[in-house]
Amino acid sequence: MRVSELGEFGLIEVLSRELGVPYPPVAGAEPRPGLLVDLGDDALVAARADEALILTTDTMVEGIHFLPERMRWEDVGWKALASNISDVAAMGGTPRLALVTLMLPPDTEVGDLTKLYRGLRECADAYEVLIAGGDIVRGPAVAVTVALTGKAIFGARKQVLTLRRDTACAGDLVAVTGTLGDSAGGLRLIQAENPTETSEHLLEAHARPRPRVDAGLVAVRAGIKCAMDVSDGLVQDLGHIARASGVTINVQSARIPLSDSLRRLFHDDYLQLALTGGEDYQLILIGSKDALEKVAESVEDVTIVGEVMEGEPRVVVLDMSGEEVSIERGGWDHMAGANP
Amino acid sequence: MRVSELGEFGLIEVLSRELGVPYPPVAGAEPRPGLLVDLGDDALVAARADEALILTTDTMVEGIHFLPERMRWEDVGWKALASNISDVAAMGGTPRLALVTLMLPPDTEVGDLTKLYRGLRECADAYEVLIAGGDIVRGPAVAVTVALTGKAIFGARKQVLTLRRDTACAGDLVAVTGTLGDSAGGLRLIQAENPTETSEHLLEAHARPRPRVDAGLVAVRAGIKCAMDVSDGLVQDLGHIARASGVTINVQSARIPLSDSLRRLFHDDYLQLALTGGEDYQLILIGSKDALEKVAESVEDVTIVGEVMEGEPRVVVLDMSGEEVSIERGGWDHMAGANP
Repeated sequence: MRVSELGEFGLIEVLSRELGVPYPPVAGAEPRPGLLVDLGDDALVAARADEALILTTDTMVEGIHFLPERMRWEDVGWKALASNISDVAAMGGTPRLALVTLMLPPDTEVGDLTKLYRGLRECADAYEVLIAGGDIVRGPAVAVTVALTGKAIFGARKQVLTLRRDTACAGDLVAVTGTLGDSAGGLRLIQAENPTETSEHLLEAHARPRPRVDAGLVAVRAGIKCAMDVSDGLVQDLGHIARASGVTINVQSARIPLSDSLRRLFHDDYLQLALTGGEDYQLILIGSKDALEKVAESVEDVTIVGEVMEGEPRVVVLDMSGEEVSIERGGWDHMAGANP
Repeated sequence: MRVSELGEFGLIEVLSRELGVPYPPVAGAEPRPGLLVDLGDDALVAARADEALILTTDTMVEGIHFLPERMRWEDVGWKALASNISDVAAMGGTPRLALVTLMLPPDTEVGDLTKLYRGLRECADAYEVLIAGGDIVRGPAVAVTVALTGKAIFGARKQVLTLRRDTACAGDLVAVTGTLGDSAGGLRLIQAENPTETSEHLLEAHARPRPRVDAGLVAVRAGIKCAMDVSDGLVQDLGHIARASGVTINVQSARIPLSDSLRRLFHDDYLQLALTGGEDYQLILIGSKDALEKVAESVEDVTIVGEVMEGEPRVVVLDMSGEEVSIERGGWDHMAGANP
């Protein structure tokens, strides 16, 4: 059997089995010794005496995750680190040290790589991350792999505080930070041959996403226990939470926060972009009304978009009249390819 | 300018400059805040309150670092992790948590990947490493990136004890663990069309190298301060130490520990293999006679092969009559290609 037939999640399941870990994660399963949070969340958390170490890694491959003719190398560098920072933010942690692995064909332009590193550095500086080191190897295409460590904070009783995917409860409300779909809108503008109108806001959202370390920290301190970053599209990402927590999640489409630019430039399908567009790197926060109100005191762009119900693990998007909205496209499967 | 013209170390220098770090490392330079050991050693060490975190990463790319038709996938997995464990061993640390990133073309056979993971798992189990998680991405060839964390031990005065490259002093002796050249010999056997004789020992040394975490720990406890793993060939790796420490290193070729198999199968050029062959993953240990004798009490295969002198940063290999041996080939430059 080939990977393309199995799909990404099938492959993860097969490989997790090799490690002796059930995937998808079973609710209530113990993490492996040495870990507080095991496979299947945004990042891993290791128990430590003084602070909890967070680890995550993410890769961008030329021709798959970016096209050099359509994206500045500085932005490739920024995004390669930002996607990892977003995973740490989604755990309620603070990013610290990054390792960068560059795979390169020998005929790669050095100037392109220094631009890439400049973008990495800009993102690192913006988030007080140290690019600690890494590795360079030869290969058939440019690929940037970032491995990032971060630290989690401790609660009053010395317990490690984290934001997980398997802690949504019936009765909780579902909130998101910022506006959704802007990165996907920016990508459409880049792909358009001759766009009649453009938007710096959307292009910037795609090229320089801003992970929400701020919101993750506020949320974990406010007692929120469930969160995830929006990297593959809201509906797909909420689906992970629904499955991990064993709940139904209802989303009110009219409540989804949208930028004026997205509405104006994509008046026919802004909702589709907001529901299924990837790489927004905003946070989904799920918790009690009280806890979310506490978050909203410090984070101004938190919007409640839905609620958690008992029921089959699924995500239901409802329009203003309470009718279910059909989602044509389910986001991104990293192995089977894009469904844009 | 292209990467192939600049070479690996030129590229590292250019990229390090982007990070504001001098490369090659300047003797006595302060590491960046948050690090005890900065870029330019086998791995990075971060300061922590209770223990020091060690981080390293290494990648194996299909067609560059391994050919599937000449190497079992299980062995690819083993080696991908072992090379990282060896870096942690060369810091005097204990490996702990690994992240594995797989880059894959969609038509990759799943069975090959489960074999690869089996090898990873076997190596992880042998060294009590936890393969904590990772990432899977699509790409034009199979590549395995491992990011590994480890911990360093503390001394009596709560200082972090590490084995570095910039701490060789004139008067120190140079030792190596195990035998050298066996992995390169194994590679030659694999590459030979019809070898007249073969050797399980050499093939195993190539397919399943055994990093020397044991020797690194004993050495750091015995007061050794300078070490490195033999990954690119003894002479090239000693060259890194000579430059980082600002010393000349003399090696007595007659003292280099060799296996019977290597001598027998490669009677014409076993010395060349031992001096320049890569991937032995043994340790170079440099320190006082007393400290090395203390190491030898617990590690039985430590051999003194040379000494550290004042002088220009260089490595001199001497034969039994004290004549300098010419080294035809300098090991491996990861970007410019192999010099086998």
